[in-house]
Amino acid sequence: MQFQERLERIRPFQVMGLVERAQTLEREGRDVIHMEIGEPDFPCPEPILRAGQQALAARSLRYTGSTGLPALREAIANHYQRSFGVDLDPNRIIVTPGASGALLLASALLVGPGDRVLMADPNYPCNRHFMALMGGEVDSVPVGPGSNWQLDADLMAQHWRPDTRLAMLATPSNPTGHVLSTEALSGVADAVAARNGTLLVDEIYQGLSWEVAPETVLNVAPQALVVNSFSKYFGMTGWRLGWLVAPDEAIEPLTRLAQNIFLAPSTPAQHAALAAFEPECRDELERRRQVLGERRDALLRALEPLGLAPSVPPQGAFYLWLDISRYSHDSRAFCARLLEEESVAITPGSDFAVAGGEHHVRIAFTTDVERLEAGVARLARFIARQAVS
Amino acid sequence: MQFQERLERIRPFQVMGLVERAQTLEREGRDVIHMEIGEPDFPCPEPILRAGQQALAARSLRYTGSTGLPALREAIANHYQRSFGVDLDPNRIIVTPGASGALLLASALLVGPGDRVLMADPNYPCNRHFMALMGGEVDSVPVGPGSNWQLDADLMAQHWRPDTRLAMLATPSNPTGHVLSTEALSGVADAVAARNGTLLVDEIYQGLSWEVAPETVLNVAPQALVVNSFSKYFGMTGWRLGWLVAPDEAIEPLTRLAQNIFLAPSTPAQHAALAAFEPECRDELERRRQVLGERRDALLRALEPLGLAPSVPPQGAFYLWLDISRYSHDSRAFCARLLEEESVAITPGSDFAVAGGEHHVRIAFTTDVERLEAGVARLARFIARQAVS
Ligand SMILES: Cc1ncc(COP(=O)(O)O)c(C=O)c1O
Ligand SMILES: Cc1ncc(COP(=O)(O)O)c(C=O)c1O
Repeated sequence: MQFQERLERIRPFQVMGLVERAQTLEREGRDVIHMEIGEPDFPCPEPILRAGQQALAARSLRYTGSTGLPALREAIANHYQRSFGVDLDPNRIIVTPGASGALLLASALLVGPGDRVLMADPNYPCNRHFMALMGGEVDSVPVGPGSNWQLDADLMAQHWRPDTRLAMLATPSNPTGHVLSTEALSGVADAVAARNGTLLVDEIYQGLSWEVAPETVLNVAPQALVVNSFSKYFGMTGWRLGWLVAPDEAIEPLTRLAQNIFLAPSTPAQHAALAAFEPECRDELERRRQVLGERRDALLRALEPLGLAPSVPPQGAFYLWLDISRYSHDSRAFCARLLEEESVAITPGSDFAVAGGEHHVRIAFTTDVERLEAGVARLARFIARQAVS
Repeated sequence: MQFQERLERIRPFQVMGLVERAQTLEREGRDVIHMEIGEPDFPCPEPILRAGQQALAARSLRYTGSTGLPALREAIANHYQRSFGVDLDPNRIIVTPGASGALLLASALLVGPGDRVLMADPNYPCNRHFMALMGGEVDSVPVGPGSNWQLDADLMAQHWRPDTRLAMLATPSNPTGHVLSTEALSGVADAVAARNGTLLVDEIYQGLSWEVAPETVLNVAPQALVVNSFSKYFGMTGWRLGWLVAPDEAIEPLTRLAQNIFLAPSTPAQHAALAAFEPECRDELERRRQVLGERRDALLRALEPLGLAPSVPPQGAFYLWLDISRYSHDSRAFCARLLEEESVAITPGSDFAVAGGEHHVRIAFTTDVERLEAGVARLARFIARQAVS
């Protein structure tokens, strides 16, 4: 059987092997500290669970329309109004199977053979792979502390090519947690618009930020495509529900795509998500955001003595992106040995970065402060042992 | 904003406009008889609901592995053993967001620019569109009563071209309900193998058949790719859960695709689906199958006097594909007027057929016998009025 060439450009998540190994070690009785997982450890919020249970009890389980329940699209539009002061026609919102579904729709609409896409490096690896799936070419632009680990207007200008069609951002970013300021966002949007390109912004970690108020690109670039999800801030990972905001003119073709590719998003998930915007749930999510902020601070404090704290602390998401070059230039081996020797699971940078991944790792603070501090203590012991040997 | 050319080849479902119009009429107080909907009217089976409720109560709602819960893959493998005598390694089963997700994986793996795909005409329209999404070219082979509305070995031989890579079947078929016999299936599989092609079989209506025992192509062609779903036979449409069976060598690249495109299938849906194979649920599904058979018989009897009963009655699914050429050569207009004048909703053939769609319609027997008979009585009145005018 012959497979398509595109498959060669789609790489597996390296962390998966590590996750499996961690599970094996746990079955053998080891106490593994999980700092590799991009999933909040908080349970699904009670109001969302209750709404899901009510939908099941009411047998509301048939196909919905392809773009989602009108009530949910309206609730999302209201959320934009309330949280960001953005006036959004609910018809511009397409409910999808996760942000993943939204990324698939956007890339199918915008990217084809010969098209180039600009994105930051490091980046969420699936982004590269969605583009490969559609036949596009990705230009990964190395970013660092200088641009707050994001693309900015200068980098756009520098790396834009005649066949670049799309620029992709994520703010807060995975894996670095860095947030684009409103000015920077606006600068990028202008740079893309000036080149007749399209801007796609992944706002899946929206709401999970501390020193800065949550922001949406729609405030500065109403024509941008925006990907979002109930997975992270709203704590609904396994339900598989997200959304795409797109300009009016894109809704009809996107609807055709959604009809054909997905038929419809999950019905119980949609009913459950209706509760996500209610005051009780919003209060709970706000508490969680604060807890995540405390964890970040604790982690930064603990990493400081190891010289591993990032020079620019991230303001959002639940990740730290650590430069480990003073200890290793092989992040895969580093992570594998750390797991074997100290039962600490973190993610090698090579999953996220085309360049520099070998001396970076990602730590997720999706476990409590006590465990995080214990994890860093083990990491310190591991590093100390390396220094001696 | 410029959209990809592939979008031009992806057409909307025409029936959607009709469905919306039907809803408007209902809001105005009309009693619409729905014979257009490809979704069983039975509620989600109780054992599945209960399992879903338990998963919610247990907060089992995090991401699962990309290929699905091991227990579910095993349950599906056991189902193949018990129902079809097929010995299947659970690792060859990838759990997906609906059969739709399975079709996306299979087409991304197998079809790219320049590849040709053979399929029957009429056909489930999304199939053509998945291929268009991946840049493939579809050769739609007109079929009729002569080959039981399916592709057979002769048609394969006749229409296979040097750049044909894939042949797609669906048995029972949507929109015709026709079932390939084991011999015919085996003949097609051999014809494809002889040409070094790949065979993809959609078995989403498996289990919904009457005069013939349910069959899987895996019994005659173990290397075929098979698409299936919890939507139809198992009554789980809105949950969005299906699966793909593929040869060993395809599992690693398919897993990479699933990781990147979907992350994972719905967690509550997977827990719910675990109950689908339990005896209590199987008994209920068997009762439903019988009810559908009675509906088909009642419909055929009712349509006979109108000269609309298919010459070869279908043996599966829940559809009839009617040749209306003695009354109309514009199925869209026919269906639109039938809805306006008699409040009966059926689907124009042009959604399914590249050729001949204008003088065919699809009737779904997803409502009870009384309503179906009332629907046909209204149809008869509509036709009689046309004949006079
Ligand atoms: C940046 C980013 N985008 C998109 C996703 C996809 O998430 P989901 O499909 O669960 O909404 C993730 C998941 O980790 C992510 O980190
Ligand atoms: C022949 C066929 N294949 C696939 C599907 C997709 O179904 P699902 O994604 O709900 O499993 C359908 C739905 O109507 C169908 O009729």
